[in-house]
This record gives sequence, structure tokens and C-alpha cells, in this order.
Amino acid sequence: MTRQQLISEIRRKHTFLCVGLDTDMRKIPQHLLSEDDPVFAFNRAIIDATAPYCIAYKPNVAFYECGGLGGWKSLERTIEYLRTQYPSHMIIADAKRGDIGNTSAMYARCFFDELQVDALTVAPYMGSDSVSPFLGREGKWVILLALTSNPGSHDFQLTTGTDGMPLFERVMRKAQEWASEDELMYVVGATQGEMFKEIRRIAPRHFLLVPGVGAQGGSLEEVCRYGMTSECGLIVNSSRAIIYASQGTDFAQVAAEKAREVQQQMEQLL
Amino acid sequence: MTRQQLISEIRRKHTFLCVGLDTDMRKIPQHLLSEDDPVFAFNRAIIDATAPYCIAYKPNVAFYECGGLGGWKSLERTIEYLRTQYPSHMIIADAKRGDIGNTSAMYARCFFDELQVDALTVAPYMGSDSVSPFLGREGKWVILLALTSNPGSHDFQLTTGTDGMPLFERVMRKAQEWASEDELMYVVGATQGEMFKEIRRIAPRHFLLVPGVGAQGGSLEEVCRYGMTSECGLIVNSSRAIIYASQGTDFAQVAAEKAREVQQQMEQLL
Repeated sequence: MTRQQLISEIRRKHTFLCVGLDTDMRKIPQHLLSEDDPVFAFNRAIIDATAPYCIAYKPNVAFYECGGLGGWKSLERTIEYLRTQYPSHMIIADAKRGDIGNTSAMYARCFFDELQVDALTVAPYMGSDSVSPFLGREGKWVILLALTSNPGSHDFQLTTGTDGMPLFERVMRKAQEWASEDELMYVVGATQGEMFKEIRRIAPRHFLLVPGVGAQGGSLEEVCRYGMTSECGLIVNSSRAIIYASQGTDFAQVAAEKAREVQQQMEQLL
Repeated sequence: MTRQQLISEIRRKHTFLCVGLDTDMRKIPQHLLSEDDPVFAFNRAIIDATAPYCIAYKPNVAFYECGGLGGWKSLERTIEYLRTQYPSHMIIADAKRGDIGNTSAMYARCFFDELQVDALTVAPYMGSDSVSPFLGREGKWVILLALTSNPGSHDFQLTTGTDGMPLFERVMRKAQEWASEDELMYVVGATQGEMFKEIRRIAPRHFLLVPGVGAQGGSLEEVCRYGMTSECGLIVNSSRAIIYASQGTDFAQVAAEKAREVQQQMEQLL
């Protein structure tokens, strides 16, 4: 999915919501456990119900790996289902990979060529050759961790260098030497509130993937106040608050209602 | 595997070699491609041939993920084979994971409870709660990226903070607040040569996992000169230089010879 396609989808649907598919066998409704592939059955129902209200889905790869072979099968089926049934939704594999060049190249093959997702989250610690194998593919995106939503994000990401630049800023600026805003986004957690002002000084036009609204306590209004651009420039993720809103047989319907509420908020904010 | 068991194995076998199982379907000998599971067949032969000369195996998870379902099956079978046939060898999953707390907890379940490896490589960028879910498990290890072997390692890891501390040092020191040397190692690339002096100032007793000897150009002698402790304190990995030493039907025998050469060098250095 190109930048222009992404912007068009946001404008057409009046939403910049990404639904996070953090699907945990221990948390899905009991009645699904008798299905052949409960995780896929859950995902399919959630996707069918929420698709009108979002422009992206983000399977969190850890939750599938944890299920071993069966888990990978559920991930493959979920992505295949999205690709064939909802081709105008962006598929983001939240995997936070990053390794030496030849190994990152294997991950690029895995996620972009085999699974055929649109975007992959990548960890920056190992530097340029850990990121570059994911770049240069028409319509494919690297979403680089910059300032994350978790409490530990302050341990290293805010460390100030001798040039006065915190690490997250150095990561963002350095990455701009490697890739343009047509294939590079950043992860910036909603819990970082006013920091979005600073982020927009560093990256005025890049799209930001924003986790942390909902269960982690971030505010959608604050993110938009400081982070939104004329092209929107935001993809805001919500996982648990939508997909686990009900544990009953009505789980998909309740998820749709929650997603619709967020979409309506977003429509106001756009 | 506990620290004491690891030290005992190194002393008993006069080696601190780890064989990296970076198994790539495109690089294994042609005659194996007719096997049911060529990747596992290759790994089993390499393991049987090299086991006397090493104390650890390190499957690089990217290479298996890249094969989709079949790849995960090969990974599971390889780890199962190691656990049952070679229980005194350490199994290191080289996955470089790291995510917010609840997601890291899923990875911990995946690698420690399901796959039952002894150690996992972890990326530090997201801080304390991304690492802590892997800790506190008797005989299990976190191997944290500190100073890696790749060219891009200098992009961020050597950035000096206002306190004069480069990022890799901050990572190492911070992690010592979270875990003791009984469950924490660091990745330090062999290509960093004299930096091992500095590393030992920061972590005098921790084990270091050292990639980059061989194909990446690091020197075993230099690593040992500056990095070895009275308990050895090193696990030196070699992947390509051993497992792909021959492309013929004699691949396992040649791998054994290469591993034995390294073991003999190590015996001199110990």
C-alpha cells in the first residue's frame, strides 16, 4: 500500500484506526474453543465486524508464535484472509525484528514475500544494516520503534547524547538518511502525550503508528492535537479495548460498536 | 542450564564454541532436498557431527520463520532433538525479541515454556518491562544485545550520553539492576576487538555471547586476550564457517573437522 493509497483510505472512510489482533487463546470467548482454529475464527469474526471502521489491522506476532505450529497457521490464515477479502486495509506485522544484514534479509523475505504484509515494525538498536534490507520495496513499509508506549521506554529512548539529542530523536533523524516518508513510519506511543510536539518538529510529514490508546491509558485527543498533519499522518492502534470488549457470543458485535465509537471520535478530529 | 553447569561443561570439554544453526534451504547440500524435512535432516547431521566440539547450539530464528509453517516445524524438531539427545548442550534461540511487558511475556512462554530453550537473545531498546518477563526462571538466560558485530552497530550503540557513557554501557549497567550474572549474558561482537577491555570493566564476570568470528572477520585470539575470565566467561559462536564448510555429501564430516579445529584453538586459549 502506497502513501497516497493510505491517505485516500483515511479520507474515504473518515478513520485512522488500526485494530490490533493480539489474539490470545486464553482470552477469546469460550464457545470458539470448539472450532478447528479458534484463533482464526475469532480474528475472522473481528475483522468482518470492524472492517468498516478501520484502515489497518496489526497482528502482534508474539501472540501467534506462542502457539507454535498451530499459531503460525492461524497467523498465515489471518493474513491471507485480510489480503483476499479486505485488500484496501493495510496489514501491519507487529514483530519488532532487527538483526545483522543477512538475517534481516531473511525476515524481509518472511514478512514481505511469504506472508505478504504491507508493513513491519522494526527495532533500531543494531543500526543501518539491520533496517536497510526491509527498504526499497514499492508499497512496503518499515515502522521503526522511536518512542514507545511502555514504562521502560524511558530507560534508553530518552537518554540525551552529548549533542543534546535524546536517543529517540537520533534514531528518527538517522533513519531519515536511509529512507523517505514513502516507506518509513515511526512508532510513537500515545502515552507520550505532549512529546508529539517534539516528534512533529523532527518528522513533520511521516506517518506515526500510535499504540497505547485505551488499555495503556493514552489520550486520542492529545495525540491528535499535537500529532495530526494535513494528511492525518497518524495510524492509531487499539487492541484489547476493542477485541476483548465482550467475552460472550456477541463479541464481534460489541467489538464493532467499540470500533465505531472510535471511528466517530476520529471523524470529529479529522 | 545453570551458570555452574555451563562452566563445568566448558572445563570438561575444553571448548566454549557455540555452533550457529543459520540453516538456509538455499545453501544446504542438494542431496538433502529429497528428504521429508531437509532443514532438520541437515541440522541433525551437523549436530551429531559437531557435538563433541561445542557446548551450545544457536538456531537463528529468522531462518526458520522464513520457511513459514514448515520452517517452524523444522525449528521445533531441531530443538526437541537437542533437548532429548544432547541435554548437556545449551540451546540459545537467537531471536532478538523485545516488546511491551504483556507481549514479552508471550515470547517468554513461546521460547522458554513451549520450545524449552535455555537462552534467548533480547533487544534492549524498549527498556526494563521488555526484558523482565524473561527473567526469574531457574536455569534460563536472557542474552541482551550490547555491542553487536555488524557495521550498523556504531549508529546508536556508541552514542555517548551527557554522562560520558556510550549507549551500550548504559544498557549493560542498567540491565545489572534487573538481573544477576546467573541469568544475564550480553551479546558482544568479535569484530569489536579491543572494546572487550572496556566490556570487562563494566561486566567483569558475566558470560558474553560472541558472534562475528569467521565470516564476519573477528579474531578469536583478540577476543580471548581481552575478554576471557577465570571461568572463561565466553561463548563464541561460529555459523557459516562451520555448517557450510562443504556443500557435498561430506558436509557433516567437514563441519566436524572445522569445529574440531576451533575446539583445539580454544583448548590452547583456555
